[in-house]
Amino acid sequence: MERTDGYGEPTKVMVAVNESSLKGYPHPSISSRSAFEWTLSKLVRSNFSGFKLLFLHVQIPDEDGFDDMDSIYASPADFKRMKAIDKIRGLHLLEFFVNHCHQLGINCEAWIRKGDPKEVICSEVKRVQPDMLVVGSRGLGPFQRVFVGTVSEFCVKHADCPVITIRRNANECPQDPVDD
Amino acid sequence: MERTDGYGEPTKVMVAVNESSLKGYPHPSISSRSAFEWTLSKLVRSNFSGFKLLFLHVQIPDEDGFDDMDSIYASPADFKRMKAIDKIRGLHLLEFFVNHCHQLGINCEAWIRKGDPKEVICSEVKRVQPDMLVVGSRGLGPFQRVFVGTVSEFCVKHADCPVITIRRNANECPQDPVDD
Repeated sequence: MERTDGYGEPTKVMVAVNESSLKGYPHPSISSRSAFEWTLSKLVRSNFSGFKLLFLHVQIPDEDGFDDMDSIYASPADFKRMKAIDKIRGLHLLEFFVNHCHQLGINCEAWIRKGDPKEVICSEVKRVQPDMLVVGSRGLGPFQRVFVGTVSEFCVKHADCPVITIRRNANECPQDPVDD
Repeated sequence: MERTDGYGEPTKVMVAVNESSLKGYPHPSISSRSAFEWTLSKLVRSNFSGFKLLFLHVQIPDEDGFDDMDSIYASPADFKRMKAIDKIRGLHLLEFFVNHCHQLGINCEAWIRKGDPKEVICSEVKRVQPDMLVVGSRGLGPFQRVFVGTVSEFCVKHADCPVITIRRNANECPQDPVDD
């Protein structure tokens, strides 16, 4: 039995998180950290038992294999090993969020999926049926968006639950705004 | 001094509300009632002192004058009287939301503006700087949207704060989905 605040099932908030494009694993991107901090300070506040946070991290197969470009794959075991390393990197990212929730006493769950983030997030929303989805956003202008696509815009249009997009603070924006 | 839950300023949630296109004033539209009920049950929950709700009702000048088509305006006083009636209708709508909050002990404020709802909502967000904006939506398909435009889509793109769109329940959808 999960704890609640006496107002029925906790509000299930799915938070999509990814690693920093500048610092790599296990560091969360600026925008996913912003989304998480916003969720804590503006929604959960003091009501730790009223919410349950669901952290979804989607690994992009090609991108996450990039570090291994110089590696030699001589046997099926080598690929298996690479997959294990990917998984461990993702787990370290999720640890950041789960530890934080644990310290505060907030119920949470975290898991990893592989694929195209925007598609996977929407299919996981369909499967898990959270009350809302929180996605971070780099707050890119229209010109920058053309080249990078934005997961948040796709989710706002296609996810089967209310979606809220949290932009990074202007003062946390790196030199190249496409970085995160 | 406002009450809080001990976690800083209450989270300011602006909720855009309008009257029912079927029943008229003082009845709230299905979608604004859904947005309000969602805000209470999923965000505020038991944390009444942690949130402050800001109800904004935007009256559309032409549309709200429609009932007075058969009236005769013979003097400036007649126009003044019409404006007073509009205002009273809007106030009765806001009363629904404010009374509900008052019963629960949730801080709130409510006010009326005139103009194009999507523009006015975004300019009020700029002025009031809420932590988030909740807008109801009829959940219209692309074909229906062409003719009616949607306030929620505009706000998601242009409002200067995080925006969450709450769709009506399918079972509350009237025969003509453009009605609300």
